[in-house]
Amino acid sequence: SRNIRLAVIPGDGIGTEVVAEGLKVLEAVGTKIEQTHYDLGAARYHRTGETLPDAVLAELRGYDAILLGAIGDPSVPPGILERDLLLRLRFEFDHYVNLRPVKLFPGVETPLADTPAENIDMIVVREGTEGLYAGTGGTMRRGTPHEIATQESLNTAYGVERVVRYAFEKAKARPRKKLTLVHKTNVLTYAGDLWQRTVNRVAEEYPDVTTDYCHIDAASMFFVTQPERFDVVVTDNLFGDIITDLGAAIAGGIGLAASGNINPERITPSMFEPVHGSAPDIAGQGKADPTATILSVAMLLEHLGLHAEAAKVERAVADDIVERLAGWAGRSTHEIGDDITARVSG
Amino acid sequence: SRNIRLAVIPGDGIGTEVVAEGLKVLEAVGTKIEQTHYDLGAARYHRTGETLPDAVLAELRGYDAILLGAIGDPSVPPGILERDLLLRLRFEFDHYVNLRPVKLFPGVETPLADTPAENIDMIVVREGTEGLYAGTGGTMRRGTPHEIATQESLNTAYGVERVVRYAFEKAKARPRKKLTLVHKTNVLTYAGDLWQRTVNRVAEEYPDVTTDYCHIDAASMFFVTQPERFDVVVTDNLFGDIITDLGAAIAGGIGLAASGNINPERITPSMFEPVHGSAPDIAGQGKADPTATILSVAMLLEHLGLHAEAAKVERAVADDIVERLAGWAGRSTHEIGDDITARVSG
Ligand SMILES: CC(C)[C@H](C(=O)O)[C@@H](O)C(=O)O
Ligand SMILES: CC(C)[C@H](C(=O)O)[C@@H](O)C(=O)O
Repeated sequence: SRNIRLAVIPGDGIGTEVVAEGLKVLEAVGTKIEQTHYDLGAARYHRTGETLPDAVLAELRGYDAILLGAIGDPSVPPGILERDLLLRLRFEFDHYVNLRPVKLFPGVETPLADTPAENIDMIVVREGTEGLYAGTGGTMRRGTPHEIATQESLNTAYGVERVVRYAFEKAKARPRKKLTLVHKTNVLTYAGDLWQRTVNRVAEEYPDVTTDYCHIDAASMFFVTQPERFDVVVTDNLFGDIITDLGAAIAGGIGLAASGNINPERITPSMFEPVHGSAPDIAGQGKADPTATILSVAMLLEHLGLHAEAAKVERAVADDIVERLAGWAGRSTHEIGDDITARVSG
Repeated sequence: SRNIRLAVIPGDGIGTEVVAEGLKVLEAVGTKIEQTHYDLGAARYHRTGETLPDAVLAELRGYDAILLGAIGDPSVPPGILERDLLLRLRFEFDHYVNLRPVKLFPGVETPLADTPAENIDMIVVREGTEGLYAGTGGTMRRGTPHEIATQESLNTAYGVERVVRYAFEKAKARPRKKLTLVHKTNVLTYAGDLWQRTVNRVAEEYPDVTTDYCHIDAASMFFVTQPERFDVVVTDNLFGDIITDLGAAIAGGIGLAASGNINPERITPSMFEPVHGSAPDIAGQGKADPTATILSVAMLLEHLGLHAEAAKVERAVADDIVERLAGWAGRSTHEIGDDITARVSG
């Protein structure tokens, strides 16, 4: 089989540490990869003022996939790296599906009392290119008592329908075949109406999928009190951001939450990254759990059609987690990476 | 002391049931009240097409306070009663503080494992008149493949500063004196910048209050994993909506979550309501827990300066909850109301 051409953006903080372990596992799985590393992030921004030069963007377009660690540092004003680097990649590469599984691995502790692992097993399909993330809005009379600041949520039939279709396909392929739209249709009436009508219309093509609706406020409650309500969740960019962090929390923490920024038509490279951030407070100390990145590598393999390899990595993680239970706590970033790598190779 | 002039809007579904118990307790506390009931909600909408007639709005303005049950019914399209009745009241009466305590009463079960009651004790100060709730936005080419739907978040220095000041006052009066701004400044850069600058500026006047910032996604996670991080939270209308339902979930459920829509200057009547909705699925069955409404009555008394009476109601609820623990489960709406009333009178 041909080599995978992979662009690697380790990024900031613990990003570099967890990506190193992800790559270790990727190599051990026996795929041929050509890696190119890109030093995008806070350091480059401070050195050159660049976030994502156009030439780099053009180059990135040529890869099969991107593996990203984490972006962001308190030394950079909020929004700069997020908007001009991370979100720009999602927008330019039209990653309209932000796929985030919320699954409690057997053996992992959840903060929820009396919740068996099988009750937390859903996939959140977060829209990745629209909504309030469009970045439109503005400020008038900044710094005066008469300041106004606006943000606009932009939603299109084109953008909503394609992600809703993707979610229906996911739901159809799962045993429970249930799709829940999460929105706030009673307040965001224009956008909510578009989302709800789209779900209703596409649902007609999927008679075997049960559809359901839940307001974002109620959904946040149900994630904690009845996570078993959810199978596949489809939602907009901002609600998806919130609910997948909440999902990570109930499924054992941000150290295990993987994600894929996906262009399903493969017109552009999809980008895989842990849901967690750069965690500057623990950076460089070997304390970060690389598991979320390793699971993101599994998603990357799956996306590239390497199903057996993806399953191997997932199984290695599941087995490693069972060992953790048996008293393997306190391992460093490297040690966890090495242990999972050994399982993949073995 | 003069009579309290109270407008009562029982509303839809379980609203009427829980309000009846709230009023029972209010009468038992020994305050003189003149009540007037208003039949606003789904039934009136179906009968007359009216949600909130201007004449009723004008009349409501003359009361000392409003007690509201719940608004909403599946027979009415989403948004109509919410926007034209509930939100209209909040906007017309300039309820810019939506005050929502998140407190785990000793003896109440939380879905969080290993979380002592004292770890969940915060107040969320949710802005009530701005943000995405402004309702601005629109739809173009509705129902076609070229549809676009927008929603706008409107934020003003005037609107943000007054609620931030209120939150600082609350924080100053509490033992921990900690205020956390919850927002998404790295994506909602215009609105986030206004909120963050306002908090920074007002903070200078409150040197004894510690201020902190948390993104909404991280905050949702911390509500579940480290609720003890929070003392007073200040946030915008939509984030506040989400996080207070999550707060209700961790503090023992929506059956206990009280709220006040407050105009601190008392230019208009403030409105008190349980955080829960009309729950049509259990309406009319005596299954609803009236405790959230009874705690909202306590907030109403507090707002009107009746501190001893408010404390009495809160104590009665706390004692009732301890009894629940000892095996009083399975009481009906009426029975819970009667039991708390007996404690207040006794
Ligand atoms: C860093 C930030 C812009 C980003 C987002 O809001 O999408 C992050 O929270 C995420 O979920 O990937
Ligand atoms: C019914 C709805 C409009 C309302 C809101 O979103 O504010 C409710 O969820 C609440 O929290 O009071």
